[in-house]
Amino acid sequence: MTPSPIRPADEAARALARRLIDTARFGALAVTDPETGAPTVSRIAIATDTAGRPVTLISDLSAHTDALGRNPRCALLLGEPGPKGDPLTHPRITLDCRARFLSRGSAEETALRARYLAARPKAKLYAGFGDFSFVLFEPASARLNGGFGKAYRLTAADLAHKD
Amino acid sequence: MTPSPIRPADEAARALARRLIDTARFGALAVTDPETGAPTVSRIAIATDTAGRPVTLISDLSAHTDALGRNPRCALLLGEPGPKGDPLTHPRITLDCRARFLSRGSAEETALRARYLAARPKAKLYAGFGDFSFVLFEPASARLNGGFGKAYRLTAADLAHKD
Repeated sequence: MTPSPIRPADEAARALARRLIDTARFGALAVTDPETGAPTVSRIAIATDTAGRPVTLISDLSAHTDALGRNPRCALLLGEPGPKGDPLTHPRITLDCRARFLSRGSAEETALRARYLAARPKAKLYAGFGDFSFVLFEPASARLNGGFGKAYRLTAADLAHKD
Repeated sequence: MTPSPIRPADEAARALARRLIDTARFGALAVTDPETGAPTVSRIAIATDTAGRPVTLISDLSAHTDALGRNPRCALLLGEPGPKGDPLTHPRITLDCRARFLSRGSAEETALRARYLAARPKAKLYAGFGDFSFVLFEPASARLNGGFGKAYRLTAADLAHKD
């Protein structure tokens, strides 16, 4: 029996996880395809809310938007390798999440919209379109991979900002 | 009713799709978590077989390996943005696949192992370990996104190398 390669979270792992989320410009979103029941994956833009949770702005025309509306269980992969070096040694994190669509014009959505557009000003080009929605990803747990042999399991509490 | 934003594949779309697959060093793999039934996503290294299909070398210790062994339906996101510019304008492709584990020592696995290690020489460090397996991704269909408003649906035939 091989021992589990997963380490308990420590402060360095928590800090790395929060840095990967805070600095992500985009990520890979896994959803369940409502037509086939199979997992599928696409790229979305990412920013964060004040609690450090990922947020995106997506169009109803995208297949992932329809999929999240039908089944909010999803996952995000964040942490992009650079153009050089072994991509598997670059740290990344998988967040297992529930996606929550924010009601347009609500106080929460209005505040998040302002924060998102300050961080991602190019999104102003389409943020006002009626088919675009803000979606908040509420992580339940995460797997952090800091490179070979450096795997950690984290909780939602490990990921939360402390202030 | 909004018209479908998905265009039919043309030769330029097929060429872009094949280029994204051929040049991918890594990708985001979406699988179904066997414990929860939810989709999840992780990073894997990628090379191709002679037919242009993605191949990886993964460890039994990885959660995605266990997941693929239980349910081979999966998806791969390939095509990585650079460090600058809007990541959503960078082309990428989602391949909806079945994963097939290659039997160690079979003729197919031996040939693919040699090809893979020529393309990814750093993998020689662990390719001989008993817990690593080569997995071939057999695409059934694909969604190509060449940037805003440039979405295409492709078939397995569109993706195949012509020689």
